[in-house]
Amino acid sequence: MTEEKHILSILVDNQPGVLSRIAGLFSGRGYNIESLCVAETMEPDVSRITMVTQGDATVIEQIKKQLFKLINVIKVYDLTTEKSIQRELILIKVSAKPEHRAEILRIVDIFRAKVVDVGPEHYTIEATGTEDKLNAIQTLLKPMGIKNIARSGRIALLRESKP
Amino acid sequence: MTEEKHILSILVDNQPGVLSRIAGLFSGRGYNIESLCVAETMEPDVSRITMVTQGDATVIEQIKKQLFKLINVIKVYDLTTEKSIQRELILIKVSAKPEHRAEILRIVDIFRAKVVDVGPEHYTIEATGTEDKLNAIQTLLKPMGIKNIARSGRIALLRESKP
Repeated sequence: MTEEKHILSILVDNQPGVLSRIAGLFSGRGYNIESLCVAETMEPDVSRITMVTQGDATVIEQIKKQLFKLINVIKVYDLTTEKSIQRELILIKVSAKPEHRAEILRIVDIFRAKVVDVGPEHYTIEATGTEDKLNAIQTLLKPMGIKNIARSGRIALLRESKP
Repeated sequence: MTEEKHILSILVDNQPGVLSRIAGLFSGRGYNIESLCVAETMEPDVSRITMVTQGDATVIEQIKKQLFKLINVIKVYDLTTEKSIQRELILIKVSAKPEHRAEILRIVDIFRAKVVDVGPEHYTIEATGTEDKLNAIQTLLKPMGIKNIARSGRIALLRESKP
């Protein structure tokens, strides 16, 4: 039993009920969805669901087969083994005491992040990157006092460049 | 009946089944979820779901009340009327014919986007911003030939700065 992270990209008809059925397939087997994004594609009738889940490869294979059988599921791509570009978005609201501001801006600079809102006591920072990169910026900002974060979960596209 | 876009931010226990139940609340009323993101927060047991849905304000109010009653739902924030910072992430794989490359890079530059992958025939571009901004970059790149897109859906945090 190899427990590993799987990333699936699923094209679905943009209809009520599809997401609930798909999420139900995973929870029915006690599988947690680590992150999930749903948004429209270029075709307004079609949405793309990108999800990250952790589990045994055999069970994921079974779930993939069941996904194919669901109505309103158009295509299922498994980007786990394929070379893919994976990105996440994070918004971090961090306490910005005067003595910490220079250090926060240095971190923002190093991670090519952006300050997107400034309040009297907080900065809100936007950053994108791989999961590891976003975990790293979060760890560095933690000592200043993180008030709130919102993370998008992972999105992915197949890589075209050869390794 | 005022049909408007609503943005809800929901803190939930990170347990299998929660997402399916929440999505089911909306689809049970025939309400489509326009976009949805689920990802972990700083506490590993707690996930945040950010969702955008369109509908009558009274019905959304009823759904919010039902959300509160669900087990594993910790908090529900309605960021529709509150001042909030809203952001999305997009990956766009665009056809990059030699005669179009300069124009693509100009668009990337204007939107403060990034080229994150280069293949022999395609560029993959990463951009963040509001829904309108991402729609705009998509519209501008469309004539070059968009092969694929992946969008995160919206995430949001309460704004601290006064308007």
